[in-house]
Amino acid sequence: MAGFALGLDFGTLSVRALAAEIGTGREAGTAVMAYPHAVMDRSLPCGKALEPGFALQHPGDYLDCMEKVIPLAMREAGITADDIVGIGIDFTACTMLPVDKSLTPLCMKKEWQENPHAWVKLWKHHGAQEEANRISSILGERGDTILRRYGGKASSERMFPKVWETLNKAPEVYAEADSFLEAGDWIVACLTGRLCRSGSLAGYKALWKKGQGYPDKAFFRALDPRLENVIEEKFAGEVLTVGTKAGTVCAEAAARFGLREGTPVAVCNVDAHVALPAVGITEPGDMLMILGTSACHIMLGKDERLIPGMCGVVEDGVVPGLTGYEAGQSCLGDHFDWFVHKLLPEEYAAEARAREMDAHTLLSEKAARLLPGQSGLIALDWWNGNRSVLVDVDLSGLIIGMTLLTRAEEIYRALIEATAYGTRRIIEAFEESGVPVGSICASGGIAYKNPFLMQIFSDVTGREIRLARSRQSSALGSAMFGAAAAGSAEGGYDTIEQAAAEMGGTLDAVYRPDPGSRRVYDRLYAEYVILHDHFGRGGNDVMKRLKAIQAEQNGN
Amino acid sequence: MAGFALGLDFGTLSVRALAAEIGTGREAGTAVMAYPHAVMDRSLPCGKALEPGFALQHPGDYLDCMEKVIPLAMREAGITADDIVGIGIDFTACTMLPVDKSLTPLCMKKEWQENPHAWVKLWKHHGAQEEANRISSILGERGDTILRRYGGKASSERMFPKVWETLNKAPEVYAEADSFLEAGDWIVACLTGRLCRSGSLAGYKALWKKGQGYPDKAFFRALDPRLENVIEEKFAGEVLTVGTKAGTVCAEAAARFGLREGTPVAVCNVDAHVALPAVGITEPGDMLMILGTSACHIMLGKDERLIPGMCGVVEDGVVPGLTGYEAGQSCLGDHFDWFVHKLLPEEYAAEARAREMDAHTLLSEKAARLLPGQSGLIALDWWNGNRSVLVDVDLSGLIIGMTLLTRAEEIYRALIEATAYGTRRIIEAFEESGVPVGSICASGGIAYKNPFLMQIFSDVTGREIRLARSRQSSALGSAMFGAAAAGSAEGGYDTIEQAAAEMGGTLDAVYRPDPGSRRVYDRLYAEYVILHDHFGRGGNDVMKRLKAIQAEQNGN
Repeated sequence: MAGFALGLDFGTLSVRALAAEIGTGREAGTAVMAYPHAVMDRSLPCGKALEPGFALQHPGDYLDCMEKVIPLAMREAGITADDIVGIGIDFTACTMLPVDKSLTPLCMKKEWQENPHAWVKLWKHHGAQEEANRISSILGERGDTILRRYGGKASSERMFPKVWETLNKAPEVYAEADSFLEAGDWIVACLTGRLCRSGSLAGYKALWKKGQGYPDKAFFRALDPRLENVIEEKFAGEVLTVGTKAGTVCAEAAARFGLREGTPVAVCNVDAHVALPAVGITEPGDMLMILGTSACHIMLGKDERLIPGMCGVVEDGVVPGLTGYEAGQSCLGDHFDWFVHKLLPEEYAAEARAREMDAHTLLSEKAARLLPGQSGLIALDWWNGNRSVLVDVDLSGLIIGMTLLTRAEEIYRALIEATAYGTRRIIEAFEESGVPVGSICASGGIAYKNPFLMQIFSDVTGREIRLARSRQSSALGSAMFGAAAAGSAEGGYDTIEQAAAEMGGTLDAVYRPDPGSRRVYDRLYAEYVILHDHFGRGGNDVMKRLKAIQAEQNGN
Repeated sequence: MAGFALGLDFGTLSVRALAAEIGTGREAGTAVMAYPHAVMDRSLPCGKALEPGFALQHPGDYLDCMEKVIPLAMREAGITADDIVGIGIDFTACTMLPVDKSLTPLCMKKEWQENPHAWVKLWKHHGAQEEANRISSILGERGDTILRRYGGKASSERMFPKVWETLNKAPEVYAEADSFLEAGDWIVACLTGRLCRSGSLAGYKALWKKGQGYPDKAFFRALDPRLENVIEEKFAGEVLTVGTKAGTVCAEAAARFGLREGTPVAVCNVDAHVALPAVGITEPGDMLMILGTSACHIMLGKDERLIPGMCGVVEDGVVPGLTGYEAGQSCLGDHFDWFVHKLLPEEYAAEARAREMDAHTLLSEKAARLLPGQSGLIALDWWNGNRSVLVDVDLSGLIIGMTLLTRAEEIYRALIEATAYGTRRIIEAFEESGVPVGSICASGGIAYKNPFLMQIFSDVTGREIRLARSRQSSALGSAMFGAAAAGSAEGGYDTIEQAAAEMGGTLDAVYRPDPGSRRVYDRLYAEYVILHDHFGRGGNDVMKRLKAIQAEQNGN
């Protein structure tokens, strides 16, 4: 019997365990469990209310769910802990928490339970917007170029704004914390009994750079004198490259999670990035596009290029030896859901019910009867701001071309086309900066659910698109990193490339651009770019002024 | 017993007869009847199919309906034909038809029934777009400025494009026609037994100008040598000023319609314009705004000013002795209906049903809870192109500012606000050209149905708005012109001003601009103007390019 690798994929709402067969990637057993406390955005477990923008989690949920899903996945696979050659973990990021010297989260200690800043701040916790703005402006004044690797702006979703927020709002929590950790690194430490940090998590979320480390003291002093020594005081733990071993399962973890003591555990990965080897990409050339509520685009490059509007550019950040690039679109599935939830006409809702199909399927079916350009509509996909390439949360939606004959499915198609134009704009940003994009591999639920959308993405981008073979490609990717952490001597692989070659890949079906559609979309995309630049680069800042008036009228 | 005047208001779908009391304007009796053939846009009565863009009517319908509504209105008023001192008529325009020497419409002769061009071409018949385009370009090359009184462009909805279309597409009909008439002039001729033409109809729709008459032979020769003598060959009939008498009811008409032979009949008016005296406006200063499926704005001026984007500027065109200005918005009620018909979400439809209210009332109720600017949205009201001030049918709709939280009532409010901005833009065009606009008087169904909309119009324009006292102000205006045709010696009035003073007026209630809302709307209107000029004056002709691509994809 072949060995297995265990992947643990910690998403926003649940954790998934996957036992995948070494040599084939066969997904032998899987289990998912939702975090009991989900996302705490209104109150703490003690009942204390949270401010708007807060998004916290309970670290106990991660461990409790692991206790359930690891044995379930092994049971479904028909294997025991002895069959597992290595374990890999991926996690949302930056999802961070303060811990004490023994790595116990402060929020799990009675005296800190009522302080929101003692809990896990989830990646989408937005309480640190003020700190992010101050970082952007201070670095701008200093002429510091470090943010050029991160789209040019500090984001409240990253590590130091969140740490600084704790120092400002809860200095007692800051003082008490022995370390601030990425939750993914904390899970790895819980498994191995020793603290180390992921170079990918640190690189994408905490300004760490291979060969340079974290920013220096002068950098942090410029932000706030109290932060001058934040790295030595609060960021203990060696930073290790992804693809290497963080340690082995300790006795305590083996007992709690039903694992074998001594099983190799990989350095933690970012949840989206880890899918790259799962689709077989370990070289520059092809792009991974993850289509969920928002969209994420991941590329590998041989050297570091400055590409406008990247979420992050990190050497060794995705695959060792290469530079990992991450770009994104702030809404994708959310964009289409908005239409269905806010504007689906009654007769469409009734038809979908009568035909027992969901509204997206019905709208796609109707929209598919149209030719490109036949609606006369064009939209900018900025309902949730623009992540790449403009990095501007204050942009908003636009749609042009409505007449008295415009129908719901035409608007729906225009929204889909807009997200495809947004993806093409990102691809062009890569290429303009010297990172050529070959074909696309898509993962995420929408990629499988909506072939009509996938064909539009192929027509608009002019790229072939293949689908990830696994529907749980992050968990599979983590299992592959687990196998690479073990090494061939222990039944795994010596490199993630070897793991990807045997365990990763795509489905056989290919979406290919239709030449006729592509010609029309080239013309429509040219219109998109004109509007994109006019409204996104200062030609008319009406979107920002409208948001300012809206905020005034809302009393903000 | 006081005398009565009879007004006949010929709309797009029906004719209304109103018996109004001299001295008070009391609406004693009214009757409405829909034309049996309505608008023929798919086929002729013989079954022959029509091309897209055709909109024809059956002239027999007008007479058949008159036979019914005149006696009904008199019966409701409790009067006889002897109590009627004068009759006034208003009609949609340019609604035109070819007749033979005896004034019989060609379409009512067996041999011409199957030829579409023998029928009445309704104002919104769009078969002559090619001819309109050629007129615009030929006059442009000649440096002819005649179209400056008509928004700078020839419209397929006016007289000579329609006549030329007949010459091009059905030269045999052109040859057979003794005259081409406005349907309103034809009705007057049917009543009086003699042909004359309305200076208002000729002025707004057939390039006729007081003191100059029609364009000269060189003008028509430049369009088409065959049209050189079109006026002397096909436009028999003296042109008379509105407010004067066209003739008296002839014996034949008296017998057919139950009228008294010898009753004075007024020169025909345009249906929208005739409402002006009905609301008491017979002087420069206040604006009449008619809110229907589209919107029409009518002003009086002391002298002729060239105002951008007017539908027409005609001396004596509305009230004798003054210049009548007509501006318009291509969609108003249609704009809101589009949203309700194409995008009303199911839960809103269900709530409206449960509360037994119509969807517009429900959406207005929800939208009224918002403050100006609170939606963060702004729209351009060009779903049906822009009539004034840009005169461009190829413009289309735009909406900016959507987020994932944007709700249906916010979009609905943005559409209403957009039409109010459009009205303000028209008011500013009047004022920039030296025609000051005081307060506004509104008529049309929406003015009474939607107080929320009226308040927005007041806030956005910064004008007081009063409502026409009569809900049938065109029919009342026609009755007043009938009374003026009779003269005081025959129990009517010597001038339309005197008739307006006694029979016209507004309701007591006044919409007044709210200073706080107005301040926010001033800022939003500034955004509207930026977008209006950018997309409407060549900054970005994306709307036209999208329509061109759409036409290609539709195979046009």
